[in-house]
Amino acid sequence: MNVTKSNYLALSGGVGGAKLALGLSQLLQQRLAIVTNTGDDFLHLGLKICPDLDTVMYTLAGISNPKLGWGLENESWNCMSGLKRYQQATWFQLGDQDLATHIVRTDLLNQGLSLSEVTAQLCANLNIQSRIIPMSDDPVATQVKLSDGSYLAFQNYFVEQQCQPQVCGFKFDGINQANVSPAFHACLDQPQLSAIIICPSNPFVSVDPILSLAGVSQSLRDHPAPVIAVSPIVGGMAIKGPTAKMMAELNMPQSALAIAQHYGDLLDGFIIDQQDKALQEDIEALGIEVLTTNTLMKDLNDKIDLAKTCLDFAKRWSY
Amino acid sequence: MNVTKSNYLALSGGVGGAKLALGLSQLLQQRLAIVTNTGDDFLHLGLKICPDLDTVMYTLAGISNPKLGWGLENESWNCMSGLKRYQQATWFQLGDQDLATHIVRTDLLNQGLSLSEVTAQLCANLNIQSRIIPMSDDPVATQVKLSDGSYLAFQNYFVEQQCQPQVCGFKFDGINQANVSPAFHACLDQPQLSAIIICPSNPFVSVDPILSLAGVSQSLRDHPAPVIAVSPIVGGMAIKGPTAKMMAELNMPQSALAIAQHYGDLLDGFIIDQQDKALQEDIEALGIEVLTTNTLMKDLNDKIDLAKTCLDFAKRWSY
Repeated sequence: MNVTKSNYLALSGGVGGAKLALGLSQLLQQRLAIVTNTGDDFLHLGLKICPDLDTVMYTLAGISNPKLGWGLENESWNCMSGLKRYQQATWFQLGDQDLATHIVRTDLLNQGLSLSEVTAQLCANLNIQSRIIPMSDDPVATQVKLSDGSYLAFQNYFVEQQCQPQVCGFKFDGINQANVSPAFHACLDQPQLSAIIICPSNPFVSVDPILSLAGVSQSLRDHPAPVIAVSPIVGGMAIKGPTAKMMAELNMPQSALAIAQHYGDLLDGFIIDQQDKALQEDIEALGIEVLTTNTLMKDLNDKIDLAKTCLDFAKRWSY
Repeated sequence: MNVTKSNYLALSGGVGGAKLALGLSQLLQQRLAIVTNTGDDFLHLGLKICPDLDTVMYTLAGISNPKLGWGLENESWNCMSGLKRYQQATWFQLGDQDLATHIVRTDLLNQGLSLSEVTAQLCANLNIQSRIIPMSDDPVATQVKLSDGSYLAFQNYFVEQQCQPQVCGFKFDGINQANVSPAFHACLDQPQLSAIIICPSNPFVSVDPILSLAGVSQSLRDHPAPVIAVSPIVGGMAIKGPTAKMMAELNMPQSALAIAQHYGDLLDGFIIDQQDKALQEDIEALGIEVLTTNTLMKDLNDKIDLAKTCLDFAKRWSY
């Protein structure tokens, strides 16, 4: 596929973002590129695990586990029994089929391929039409800052400790040394991009790592295409994950308005849920255009509907 | 466990050897060290796979798959389905629980542990009482020479091509650079070793790699303990595997006598099956003491009985 044909760019974390990415990919196929957070990637038992990439990949391939919200459908967990025999850490669940992804990825990386190249190969094997692009081929490791000043690696916070510790900040180790991946860079350089869509992912640990890569925020501000975000907060709650809990711990109001303030002048447009309509004026006062709609994505139709709304909204900035 | 308490040493390949090793370990527990061939180890999908070590380990842990003759009992194969999605080679079957062994081993090796140290740790986790020792911590790769003069890596010959190509020789890549593993070396240095038992494994591809390591054959010849082999050929047939087929292709008679001739002056004693009793005089004419017994190991009692016979036979050389 030619980079110049990919007319929409989405930025995504895991589950929440992947839902909208699926809707967008149903409408746009090869014209969509999804840049995915790699800040929560980690090495586990020597295997390179990329939770957000995997979630987006499995979701777009139609093989994700709808019950768990992560991993693969029809999964089994027998390798875990083997790992228990050897007294290995079992807090990170590795499904048997899912393991194939980690094994193949690790093997290809060790053979010298970049994460972008590996991801493209895995996506091709899964017949995914849209492009899934890691934000960087270099390692970035999200760390959660705890109230005692110490840091906890993201997966230990998120999975092992189930988001229970109180957070007071974040850092992205390696972010200053990490380059934007070549395909992400090419996307940002496309003058014919029609919109850049920030999916309803966790702003702090899913989107901010992408935005913190050198040059990305400035490219978004400078780009002729509108930057549109979908609020991950609806009626003061996060649909999934620790976004609202983190906002409370960071002393932020748990509202779509606070999300808009967080992204600030990066945004041209913001899509909020109809139940947050009362916030519209305050958000518009920030200089951000607002569209209210149903943002809850319960089934595939909801995902496609919200994706359509995003694309229609973007037309306001047609140039 | 103290090295000096290990009074018996067995040399073993995979399935056939593991049967006798199990019998010996039932009798000797910590007093047995089993040195295992690593010539058929290979890297597959970036994972270090040690088929003979695994077979001996699983057999002694009582978790081997009795139907397959390799791998683990109650095994599932779901990671293989995942690997197929990514169009990976599937000729080498990786069970889901078995994968845990390869993942943990690879991880520990990458952390800098030696194969001996990794094996000791895995065996401890599996509560194995006897010591299982890789012949070397350095890579040795058995290659099968084909009639056209080319070589085929052992697992490709054995598993992928199911032993179908005609063989005309073998080489063990890396054998001249490989050191005997420290624990194997310590065993060979034990003056109080009561016997060295060559298990009924394939002489060409399971035992010869061990014997080809620098100093091993000479140590066996010089050792005060008797060296006793159990014939892997019974009535002109191999119980399991390609031994008899290889002998035919190498223009050797398919008999216990030819096995004795192959090991030659390395042997003090040779145990053959009662159906090969007619060969006893010819083998004794080589200067090797012979004991005939039932060598077919159909169940655990057979394995223990044959192990007892080995230990009793060794007493003829008590010193």
